[in-house]
Amino acid sequence: MTDLFWPGDERAGDLFTGGAWLRAMADVEQAWLDALAGAGIAPARADLAGLAGPGDLPALARAAEGGGNPVIALVGLLRERAGGPAAAWIHRGLTSQDVVDTALVLCARDTVARLRADLRHQAGSLARLARAHRGTVMAGRTLTQHAVPVTFGLKAAGWLAGVLDAAGTLGRLRFPVQVGGAAGTRSAVVALAGARGSADPVAAAEALAGDAARRLGLAADPPWHTRRATVTALGDALVICTDAWGRLAADVAVLSRPEIAEVSEPAADGRGGSSAMPHKRNPVLSVLVRRAALAAPPLASTLHLASALTVDERPDGAWHAEWATLRTLARRTATAASQTRELLAGLTVDADRMAATAAGAREALTAEARAVAAFTGADAAGHGPPDGTGAAGALVDAVLDRADRFLEAHA
Amino acid sequence: MTDLFWPGDERAGDLFTGGAWLRAMADVEQAWLDALAGAGIAPARADLAGLAGPGDLPALARAAEGGGNPVIALVGLLRERAGGPAAAWIHRGLTSQDVVDTALVLCARDTVARLRADLRHQAGSLARLARAHRGTVMAGRTLTQHAVPVTFGLKAAGWLAGVLDAAGTLGRLRFPVQVGGAAGTRSAVVALAGARGSADPVAAAEALAGDAARRLGLAADPPWHTRRATVTALGDALVICTDAWGRLAADVAVLSRPEIAEVSEPAADGRGGSSAMPHKRNPVLSVLVRRAALAAPPLASTLHLASALTVDERPDGAWHAEWATLRTLARRTATAASQTRELLAGLTVDADRMAATAAGAREALTAEARAVAAFTGADAAGHGPPDGTGAAGALVDAVLDRADRFLEAHA
Amino acid sequence: MTDLFWPGDERAGDLFTGGAWLRAMADVEQAWLDALAGAGIAPARADLAGLAGPGDLPALARAAEGGGNPVIALVGLLRERAGGPAAAWIHRGLTSQDVVDTALVLCARDTVARLRADLRHQAGSLARLARAHRGTVMAGRTLTQHAVPVTFGLKAAGWLAGVLDAAGTLGRLRFPVQVGGAAGTRSAVVALAGARGSADPVAAAEALAGDAARRLGLAADPPWHTRRATVTALGDALVICTDAWGRLAADVAVLSRPEIAEVSEPAADGRGGSSAMPHKRNPVLSVLVRRAALAAPPLASTLHLASALTVDERPDGAWHAEWATLRTLARRTATAASQTRELLAGLTVDADRMAATAAGAREALTAEARAVAAFTGADAAGHGPPDGTGAAGALVDAVLDRADRFLEAHA
Amino acid sequence: MTDLFWPGDERAGDLFTGGAWLRAMADVEQAWLDALAGAGIAPARADLAGLAGPGDLPALARAAEGGGNPVIALVGLLRERAGGPAAAWIHRGLTSQDVVDTALVLCARDTVARLRADLRHQAGSLARLARAHRGTVMAGRTLTQHAVPVTFGLKAAGWLAGVLDAAGTLGRLRFPVQVGGAAGTRSAVVALAGARGSADPVAAAEALAGDAARRLGLAADPPWHTRRATVTALGDALVICTDAWGRLAADVAVLSRPEIAEVSEPAADGRGGSSAMPHKRNPVLSVLVRRAALAAPPLASTLHLASALTVDERPDGAWHAEWATLRTLARRTATAASQTRELLAGLTVDADRMAATAAGAREALTAEARAVAAFTGADAAGHGPPDGTGAAGALVDAVLDRADRFLEAHA
Repeated sequence: MTDLFWPGDERAGDLFTGGAWLRAMADVEQAWLDALAGAGIAPARADLAGLAGPGDLPALARAAEGGGNPVIALVGLLRERAGGPAAAWIHRGLTSQDVVDTALVLCARDTVARLRADLRHQAGSLARLARAHRGTVMAGRTLTQHAVPVTFGLKAAGWLAGVLDAAGTLGRLRFPVQVGGAAGTRSAVVALAGARGSADPVAAAEALAGDAARRLGLAADPPWHTRRATVTALGDALVICTDAWGRLAADVAVLSRPEIAEVSEPAADGRGGSSAMPHKRNPVLSVLVRRAALAAPPLASTLHLASALTVDERPDGAWHAEWATLRTLARRTATAASQTRELLAGLTVDADRMAATAAGAREALTAEARAVAAFTGADAAGHGPPDGTGAAGALVDAVLDRADRFLEAHA
Repeated sequence: MTDLFWPGDERAGDLFTGGAWLRAMADVEQAWLDALAGAGIAPARADLAGLAGPGDLPALARAAEGGGNPVIALVGLLRERAGGPAAAWIHRGLTSQDVVDTALVLCARDTVARLRADLRHQAGSLARLARAHRGTVMAGRTLTQHAVPVTFGLKAAGWLAGVLDAAGTLGRLRFPVQVGGAAGTRSAVVALAGARGSADPVAAAEALAGDAARRLGLAADPPWHTRRATVTALGDALVICTDAWGRLAADVAVLSRPEIAEVSEPAADGRGGSSAMPHKRNPVLSVLVRRAALAAPPLASTLHLASALTVDERPDGAWHAEWATLRTLARRTATAASQTRELLAGLTVDADRMAATAAGAREALTAEARAVAAFTGADAAGHGPPDGTGAAGALVDAVLDRADRFLEAHA
Repeated sequence: MTDLFWPGDERAGDLFTGGAWLRAMADVEQAWLDALAGAGIAPARADLAGLAGPGDLPALARAAEGGGNPVIALVGLLRERAGGPAAAWIHRGLTSQDVVDTALVLCARDTVARLRADLRHQAGSLARLARAHRGTVMAGRTLTQHAVPVTFGLKAAGWLAGVLDAAGTLGRLRFPVQVGGAAGTRSAVVALAGARGSADPVAAAEALAGDAARRLGLAADPPWHTRRATVTALGDALVICTDAWGRLAADVAVLSRPEIAEVSEPAADGRGGSSAMPHKRNPVLSVLVRRAALAAPPLASTLHLASALTVDERPDGAWHAEWATLRTLARRTATAASQTRELLAGLTVDADRMAATAAGAREALTAEARAVAAFTGADAAGHGPPDGTGAAGALVDAVLDRADRFLEAHA
Repeated sequence: MTDLFWPGDERAGDLFTGGAWLRAMADVEQAWLDALAGAGIAPARADLAGLAGPGDLPALARAAEGGGNPVIALVGLLRERAGGPAAAWIHRGLTSQDVVDTALVLCARDTVARLRADLRHQAGSLARLARAHRGTVMAGRTLTQHAVPVTFGLKAAGWLAGVLDAAGTLGRLRFPVQVGGAAGTRSAVVALAGARGSADPVAAAEALAGDAARRLGLAADPPWHTRRATVTALGDALVICTDAWGRLAADVAVLSRPEIAEVSEPAADGRGGSSAMPHKRNPVLSVLVRRAALAAPPLASTLHLASALTVDERPDGAWHAEWATLRTLARRTATAASQTRELLAGLTVDADRMAATAAGAREALTAEARAVAAFTGADAAGHGPPDGTGAAGALVDAVLDRADRFLEAHA
């Protein structure tokens, strides 16, 4: 997958592609069929692996319009190709939404796994930067103007804390199976279990849902077909990631300005050039990460809107708006994760330039210290760290402690 | 193009695909080269048609990350493949943004042409519905409750007026060329013209921009590289379309409820079925159109945000967020246009059911009339149209007049 | 507080009003002054309570433009009015953002406390509805059409689960103090502590921040001035609430339609009337709750955007966009909480009408069961609950268990 | 009106306050009563001016919840206080939405008039800047890096063109009356006219609507109660304004950075200070304008969403979401208009610093020219303006011509 309109998209690989979603849907049907067979309800299992593939995507996508989703056509195709006694049992007891939703969750889980790996790597890079520059003094800037001195270590630690927050949020996400049936009652499963002689068909239906969840490695939640916090929590978590990266990319973009020039992006072949100005080196990773950060929040907001507009036992459009929105948000987040990882791994810090700017701005940067000195009657120079960076070192250390624990736990 | 995550996407055909954008970029380079050659600045022209094609998309997309956009790699490829004395002149004087923006405008123009055709067809269907049901009384509904009688003709006329509004908005859009050069000064063009002996290189640059615009059928605006109202106006216009369709799809979805059953969507093979309930007929076109209408406004808002965050002579991320946003919004709008066209062309209206509901709700629907009668002391039954629909007929006629003029002008 | 443009706003009472924020800012200054005095840094404390009040709001708001926030003027006013030796020590060591952010957190905490109380009450009402209607069969509806039978108890349980989810999300929010100083280094506090003889001024600064947090009942986090997940998590949590209420209000609005008439809103004097149609009863609480649910997601998205655009040690506009956005979102959520509470406490359920509709739609509602029977060769009527509601009862019970635990824990 | 959460709000004065909206609603009732009396339908007119005032706002706002809007209570109050034979005729024939919508349009018209005056003033300032700095060379910057030389005049001309675009968009807005009655049929007006003996009550209703429009200075459109492009066009136009200002404020914020220092905001007492750093001068107007520009697009998107969710003859929440959204967007836009006006009127441009930076960056800024020279074999220095600014001068002149025509037309 590449996308001419979203350079870097190929970094997301196969995550949340049509092919990946199709495979996830087939996995759901497989897990369900195996659960039915395992419970003695279906007479046999069948191997659905590879029955539907990338070549089927155009036809399935076209057929999806008729039913409003791709599952009806997929089931037809799987039943036709599976053959044998199990074929007719494929999808029995499920509804389209069960398959669509569970497959979305599978794609989301894969995306989140990738993001967590990238966040871990970013955290490693940032911990190194924060540690290395714990004492690198630079001008603090607020509302674009020089404020008091900070250290680049503190700045990196702030970025790092954002990355750790994002990883924590991803870590708390749930990935539940969806087994609700046509209207959330699991009616067909119950009827099937009953018809096949189950003494307690309701319990059997719950056991089947649990078994399918286990086979897929998902949580066995009750149906959430009309309760979409599962989806919105995912969207919000993705945006918390892009927020964290957007914030650091904004800093890198500013600090890369030639008049400031305190950091620069990693150089790479073919990176940062211009079609008209051959010698230009643009902070292109930051630019592309910022792009993602600007465009992500409204996508998550669309997921919330879809949640809020849920009506009946399946809504009339809100649910359908989720899929592509989630896909786009997920792929862009994965792309930005990778770009940020590369950006941080190779970020160049010009400590001399930072020192020179801070020295040149001494008058402004020490205004607060002079004010404190005048107020207390004390000698300003005699208190706190002589570089005026207050508790910066301790604050860096606290974040580094947190990062070390995180990196160790996720080594 | 199909998209499993957005059923119906193939209705948008090739509009705003990577391939279409690539072709548009090549068209821009061609027009510019021809303009350079026509002005005697480039020594020759070359035929760029087909030099870059769909097979180049993955490589170009990958290369696009390095420069932040796909043009650098495309120019390299065109120069290499064109050969001859003109090859080196390809893209001379332009910057990447000139090509990207102008190509986006070309894709947008194609999209708008398609939309206008669909709106015209929709208007025709709606005019027929409004005319046929000018006297079909039905219950008016406000805040979900029965209000006073209306006619289905008036409802259709209201939808029609929205469609005409949308067509009018599209008709006022501008499609300008972008020729600004590296920072909006056209410096390279001026220098080239000067180097090739132009007596007034500034005038020559303007003439070149105008000639390229003419060749592309675009307006010859001054550079708008940092003034993005061209893009936001397009986004807003697309959303005005989806608003109009969302509004009518919401009505169709409600009126299709089995308890109301006053309209139904056109039947079609494989349309509206369910994977679990074989006899179900879902108003799937309305559902899919509503999906588009819910998801569109935040996309247009992203375009505005990008416009508001424009900084310097080319911004650090805002511009890059526009391309895919516009693409997605455009394709979804084209898809919804086609779905709405089909929905309206085949909409079934059950005038008997409308009459029965209105009769059953007579007490509520005539409450206002009784109140007016009580207030005026007049016999309520004696005034206004006996069906209580007030000026509905005249209001329908006014919209039909407007529609007839529109349909005639765009026959 | 009332707002003609947002009927019901007075339900939010004093939450997040200018007066409440001002009071919270004074509380922050008080806690900080007390901490300074408690640590022996300030020579005395002063009682700031009531020094600034509602009458000061217009002047403070006007003065806020000059500094970009209201704190500079507030500090001037507090110092002037406090008198005594402590006056000059007010705000020493803090920066405006410390006061603004911490006061926002205090307002947020009050809002969340109110929301949690309303959610608790809603959960109680919903548990009663789910229990009472555990066996009340009604038509399930998907994509607006009749699907399989459900129970109103299951529907209420679904709403309830959403309410419990929302309460859980609110319960996980953090409310941290902000003590970062001018650029997040706590430089002035460190300098003050040093000037007043502290042996370890960095540790003293941390202790002061912790003491202030303790006095305010907040968490003693490190500075989060440029890491805004605290704010976005709050916004997302508020939207999770409005999503849950929007979803149930959408159901109530549909089920209140006269053609369906399965539920109705609580009657109340002056509620649901019309200026033109005296006998009309509109589901006005649902309408107003839906209004909130539609408008909330973009507000939370603005908070994310502000987070993503954070740059330097304090950003150039992004931070300033948070305050009113959070205020509006919080007040609307509190208003909707109260409206939903009232809606649920008095919701009327017409079980007879539900039964009649289900009976009339028997053909459609039993299509799935017949299909299962045909497939399995079993007698459809003999399996699962005879009413065809599958596992509905068990699913209701599971949510009720969860609700009972929640209600007990928050009694 | 001031708003502690939105510093500068008082600049919007009385625009779109509760009081202004109430006054506008009374104006609508007055115009309608006068139209009824003028047509001989109502027996007399009454003077409603001042019958309802700011003191009534809390009670009206509270009562608004019952009916979902404030009109029912307002009509009761007006009828009670007006007395005389006309009292009972107040509001006859109208519905709440007629009054709410028309009053919103009146408030919008006032806002737009204010905006146009501010845009005119901004255009004057910008034309002066563009003219004065037509030859002031500065470094062009793209993706944060130095590109080719531009002039500050060209930058100002770009801002100016954005301001002219915005003024043009505002100038094309329509301000229509809303007279639709309970469900858009004008049924009550028709019935009233009929009861009072009109021979053609439908024509009489249209004449009444036209007369009311004329009295209010509004356009006499057919009912647009369910066709909300009137509202979305207003919202989009407001955002086009904030986009234009956000774009220039972003430039000012960057160019005000101490490392760049090419422009600075106008100094003013109490402007730009800091609570912790006494000597700091923040570009606070730019910061506050950027704030508005970031927060505006999602508000306009909410108006589109409300438009798209319009259903029936009055929707169940979408309409109600418009009022406060429009109010907030309008007041913020008016505030930002005034701040931008002040910013531009007093902007300080440091041409020497620009020259120094451009000189220091000569290597980068002339890279393109050298490349052109190398390509053409010509002497780079000999072509185009010697300062390398290409067509900048001519492009400035074109915008100035446009501005002069605009300023003359709106003198």
